[in-house]
Amino acid sequence: VTLLDEILEQPEAAARFLDRQLATVHSIAATIQRRDPSFVLIAARGTSDHAAIYAQYAFGLRNGLPVALAAPSMFSLYGAPPRLDRAVVLAISQSGTSPDIVAVVDEARRQGAPSVAITNDPGSPLAVAADHVLPLEAGPERAVAATKTYTTQLLAIAALSAALSGGRGATADAAALHAVPRAIDNALSTDGRARTLAAARTSISRAVVVGRGYEYATAREWALKLQELTYVMAHAWSSADFEHGPLALLEPGFPVLAAIPDDVAGAALVPLLRRLRDEHGADLVAISARSDIVDLRPMPAGGSLPPWLAPIASIVPAQLFAYHLARAKGIDTERPRSISKVTRTR
Amino acid sequence: VTLLDEILEQPEAAARFLDRQLATVHSIAATIQRRDPSFVLIAARGTSDHAAIYAQYAFGLRNGLPVALAAPSMFSLYGAPPRLDRAVVLAISQSGTSPDIVAVVDEARRQGAPSVAITNDPGSPLAVAADHVLPLEAGPERAVAATKTYTTQLLAIAALSAALSGGRGATADAAALHAVPRAIDNALSTDGRARTLAAARTSISRAVVVGRGYEYATAREWALKLQELTYVMAHAWSSADFEHGPLALLEPGFPVLAAIPDDVAGAALVPLLRRLRDEHGADLVAISARSDIVDLRPMPAGGSLPPWLAPIASIVPAQLFAYHLARAKGIDTERPRSISKVTRTR
Repeated sequence: VTLLDEILEQPEAAARFLDRQLATVHSIAATIQRRDPSFVLIAARGTSDHAAIYAQYAFGLRNGLPVALAAPSMFSLYGAPPRLDRAVVLAISQSGTSPDIVAVVDEARRQGAPSVAITNDPGSPLAVAADHVLPLEAGPERAVAATKTYTTQLLAIAALSAALSGGRGATADAAALHAVPRAIDNALSTDGRARTLAAARTSISRAVVVGRGYEYATAREWALKLQELTYVMAHAWSSADFEHGPLALLEPGFPVLAAIPDDVAGAALVPLLRRLRDEHGADLVAISARSDIVDLRPMPAGGSLPPWLAPIASIVPAQLFAYHLARAKGIDTERPRSISKVTRTR
Repeated sequence: VTLLDEILEQPEAAARFLDRQLATVHSIAATIQRRDPSFVLIAARGTSDHAAIYAQYAFGLRNGLPVALAAPSMFSLYGAPPRLDRAVVLAISQSGTSPDIVAVVDEARRQGAPSVAITNDPGSPLAVAADHVLPLEAGPERAVAATKTYTTQLLAIAALSAALSGGRGATADAAALHAVPRAIDNALSTDGRARTLAAARTSISRAVVVGRGYEYATAREWALKLQELTYVMAHAWSSADFEHGPLALLEPGFPVLAAIPDDVAGAALVPLLRRLRDEHGADLVAISARSDIVDLRPMPAGGSLPPWLAPIASIVPAQLFAYHLARAKGIDTERPRSISKVTRTR
């Protein structure tokens, strides 16, 4: 089964990226520093867009760099792109073939803004169009649902963030980055737990997924895996946005999936989750490295990693949960209906 | 019924804003132009966040201004905000009371970045914290689900965009802005159609909402109204993102709601919708001013407005659809379960 193989390959894919691409990471970081950008514009779709959300937190919190997520239609369909004269443009795409993402990089070149393509195919149109290419080294990804390209995308962004901060924390950051493959490996040990939790939920058709801070990206990607693989109508929110309205959706037994960071944002999320469980009767499934939420019985993940790297491991139990839920529902995980591996949108 | 009253008040609220606040709009636009920002950072939650998405398209496509949507937790919980030295900060909030949004404006002042609060309460903590205040003039909004503050937020942003572009188009822009109250009034005439469409769908528990370009904000806000008022698990996507995975959700009879702009982005969306109807058996409900999609039988809206202003009117049939669906399901539209008018998130 290709999908499961690719989930299991993630520690090696991460190790390969670290082994082969750190020099390129440092050279790209130096280019960004020379530019001294006012902000980073990121263009991405689908799973890659969730890597972009992780980048918003990593670059913002660790490097002081504001991140704007591009609306590619401005570049492709409308042909009226905004000014990029103080930006660095980052395009993230597994295949590197979607015309709307390539259009953003083409416009960056036209305006003289440096561009970087993070892609699994260094020969793709996106890689050719960009000034700099950061290959994911994930190996060919054949399953329709992206897994190992997502975790290597996060790792590429994390490595860029570490290279951009440099200085006193550099040694600790480098050690933490090199602990990622083993942390992913540890996260794979949640397989039995993920299977049990999924087997008890084969009848769900809707789910709320919440996250906050560094783990908001995990919530978004978890929801997408459920949509693609299990046809569950899963909707992810930052827990703060969820409280501004969508909370009305909850009724007793409603599945609430949560990715809880082991930091101050996670500390703010925990009381909400307990309230959803106790007052709304929500059926909670959590992923977290926190040690202070035994009552939420989270699937453990990323425990050995600092919060800024934890999302690379904490998505793994979510992938396994979606995989096992699909299998338990009798869905062919290699051929989710209606979608294909490469989507070319304009 | 307060909610329906407030939906019906929207033409007057828009007229009042235009009558009272255009001088303030021009003064704020002049401040922004003096600053010559590299980008605009917008902080907002819930419905106001959808006004922020509209601003991303309006400022980007019409003024060449990149827009970044703030992750407020970086400012409030993490206390590690990004650099804002080349930004203008815009905070959008009906009540002006959410601490995480106020934290973004506080940080703007600390870093010397100009800030503007768009709020319905010029005496709110947000208004006090910001350098400039643009009051919505919507009158007190009492219903939990925001309606007239959303359309006046869009109008405030549209007026700012017009003031920022100035020049040759200024006369046409001013005429178009002043046509907004009548266009909203015309959109209210879809009431009977919205009620019929809703009455036929009282058993739905899930819905996909798609939009693109200027109408992506409409899709997002339509989904939120359905979540708040009807407890339908509605999820909005840009149609391009929808094709990258979530398309797998569709099965025959699945409700697909669409907000279709009358421009090149809408022209790209129409073939997808026909495919969803013909190949996937989707149950389509559309809102559009386009004249070339008679087969999609859209609720008409914003027909007299150019595409950049159309979202102010095209949300109205969506509000009415959600209102009638709630009533048909026997839900008290004045007291959606679990949520309250003002949400103070950190």
